[in-house]
Amino acid sequence: MSEQASEDRLDRLGALPIRDDLRGLVPYGAPQLDVPILLNVNENTHGVPDDARKAILAAVEAALAGLNRYPDREFTRLREALADYLGHGLAAENIWAANGSNEVLQQILQAFGGPGRSLLSFPPTYSMYPLLASGTGTEYLAGRRASDFSLSADSAAAQVAEHRPNLVLLCSPNNPTGTALGLDVVEAVYAAGEASQTMVVVDEAYAEFAQQGTPSALELLPGRNRLIVSRTMSKAFALAGARLGYLAAAPEVADALRLVRLPYHLSALTQATAVAALQHSASLQANVADIKLQRDRIVAGLQDLGLTPARSDANFVFFGSVPDPRAVWQGLLAAGVLIRDVGIPGSLRVTAGTEAETSKFLSVLAGLLGTGPAADSVDWTHTRNDKGLP
Amino acid sequence: MSEQASEDRLDRLGALPIRDDLRGLVPYGAPQLDVPILLNVNENTHGVPDDARKAILAAVEAALAGLNRYPDREFTRLREALADYLGHGLAAENIWAANGSNEVLQQILQAFGGPGRSLLSFPPTYSMYPLLASGTGTEYLAGRRASDFSLSADSAAAQVAEHRPNLVLLCSPNNPTGTALGLDVVEAVYAAGEASQTMVVVDEAYAEFAQQGTPSALELLPGRNRLIVSRTMSKAFALAGARLGYLAAAPEVADALRLVRLPYHLSALTQATAVAALQHSASLQANVADIKLQRDRIVAGLQDLGLTPARSDANFVFFGSVPDPRAVWQGLLAAGVLIRDVGIPGSLRVTAGTEAETSKFLSVLAGLLGTGPAADSVDWTHTRNDKGLP
Repeated sequence: MSEQASEDRLDRLGALPIRDDLRGLVPYGAPQLDVPILLNVNENTHGVPDDARKAILAAVEAALAGLNRYPDREFTRLREALADYLGHGLAAENIWAANGSNEVLQQILQAFGGPGRSLLSFPPTYSMYPLLASGTGTEYLAGRRASDFSLSADSAAAQVAEHRPNLVLLCSPNNPTGTALGLDVVEAVYAAGEASQTMVVVDEAYAEFAQQGTPSALELLPGRNRLIVSRTMSKAFALAGARLGYLAAAPEVADALRLVRLPYHLSALTQATAVAALQHSASLQANVADIKLQRDRIVAGLQDLGLTPARSDANFVFFGSVPDPRAVWQGLLAAGVLIRDVGIPGSLRVTAGTEAETSKFLSVLAGLLGTGPAADSVDWTHTRNDKGLP
Repeated sequence: MSEQASEDRLDRLGALPIRDDLRGLVPYGAPQLDVPILLNVNENTHGVPDDARKAILAAVEAALAGLNRYPDREFTRLREALADYLGHGLAAENIWAANGSNEVLQQILQAFGGPGRSLLSFPPTYSMYPLLASGTGTEYLAGRRASDFSLSADSAAAQVAEHRPNLVLLCSPNNPTGTALGLDVVEAVYAAGEASQTMVVVDEAYAEFAQQGTPSALELLPGRNRLIVSRTMSKAFALAGARLGYLAAAPEVADALRLVRLPYHLSALTQATAVAALQHSASLQANVADIKLQRDRIVAGLQDLGLTPARSDANFVFFGSVPDPRAVWQGLLAAGVLIRDVGIPGSLRVTAGTEAETSKFLSVLAGLLGTGPAADSVDWTHTRNDKGLP
């Protein structure tokens, strides 16, 4: 769309009787450009392995025979398969799922948040949280982290006691910084929320990439009915395109979400795809292992370049001490490598790629910082492309 | 779940800090029973034709190669295909889509309704409307119809002028009664809503089944930027399991919905499936033609039995003058035929089935009303099964 046409559309949008709190906002979404190496939205660069792909196709073929019927509203087989995958003694009744973890979190806010209620989170963190709060009329409270972006049990608990929020959202490993929280933080937040009956949600979208020995908040579920652990199949399972987020919690949490979800919200194809992928988690986990290797290569490579990468338990690395992030971001893009400027001064974020993509990123970056060969100067785009939120 | 376990779960749900307006509600959803002939939720009983099925499978296979990537947030190809299908001079920029028309309507309410705003509709109509209003904090206003459930242009316009609602939802053909509205009603409602800048939504989920000569509100779109026509691929396209609802409107309406939708709400598989099905609309329309034949057989058969079916522009028939609807519903179920008691005294609703299903329904009904052979007395279930809302 030309600039003129775009302005005309905004004028026409402004003439519609939209809600006042939406007025003046610009439709979200920058152009989705065709850059060769996409390391900007923490996708799984390794793709769906062949065995999982074949199984998904067979499952979809079987589902086609009944596609004229509404899907299983309770997605029972999928909940069973997710419970089996998570282990920790969980059963189907502990599981809930929706179209991406954004929708899972939205349903949680619809049930436990909304007008007159509040959500506490700790920026910098996943940028969808305030948007989900606003979309459900929930007040968003921005908590504080230490200057190195860490969050201690004492600090988090004190902030919960201070704000008495209806919900707390802890992102672990945190996006965009990449570091997992200790379980002591989750325990302290849960205990501090006892008086205010605060629901505690731990967003573990990237949990499968955690460093060895990093525990999951799934361990804390027994006896804690206000605790929710959310997960996704977008990252470790390489299914960002299939949109499947889920959670584990006490069975009554799933019952609460049954009160707010739209009937038949999960398509038969989504259910079939997710079940088939879960049956092939072994080959998917092999890719996870390689992605962790590439992630560790990035951390080591960045350190060699004099940059300061944060400890990463995810499939991406957040790094500081970048002299001119804007120029580095642009220089990488000019060489066909798209990474993410998350708006934190002196820092950038990069997704772990395949071995070749990771090597290319590191060598172009070295060239840009004057410690390696110069980057190609292909002009991929005139405008900044930030494809999306994750 | 046993009754005892179920009570325990309700107690545990009550102990959670859910929103006050959800308190005491029971998780929606009766058991989904395995009854041989399902004529209760207006599904397309003819299934997805072979050519469409093959095309969908090939499209899904192609999409699997990129399933690790987030889907096209703008679902451009799908919007183009939907615009082509609808005709009426519509282009991709006029189209929006979501996971089922329930989600389309929910997004419309998020953008134009919400706290402090109101939605007017005319019961008896689709039972999701008040639920969608409540889920988005929108006040639901129940308008009035004539005693034969018809709605005239004068009456509808007067009620809009009286209530000055932020939105009006007109279901045409109406569910559960099956009759389409004249375009004069839509025009009058739109004109009456000028002063209050009322958004007018015409839900045409069943439009493809309309009697010959019944016009679509799509004709009224030019020059009316507050008018939205919503459709679904669940019915004519036999894709209830794939969850694809959509709408046609002025481009700025789609822009408004971009402000409230979750990013990447439509999966790559949903997009691929819908595009492939749209490329095979010819064979799907052949099934629609047969379903209309069966629908007309039902109307004639019910009249022969002394019942009073409403004019149907849908794939279902609403009929009155039933002496004991509860007993008839139960008798049909005992014979393996599930239809719908929509809670209107003296009436029932039945979906048009395949030729064999339709014949079975009519002969069992004749037996129950004492004008044909007695029904088999297989006891399919002890509890009433109302599988879902549509």
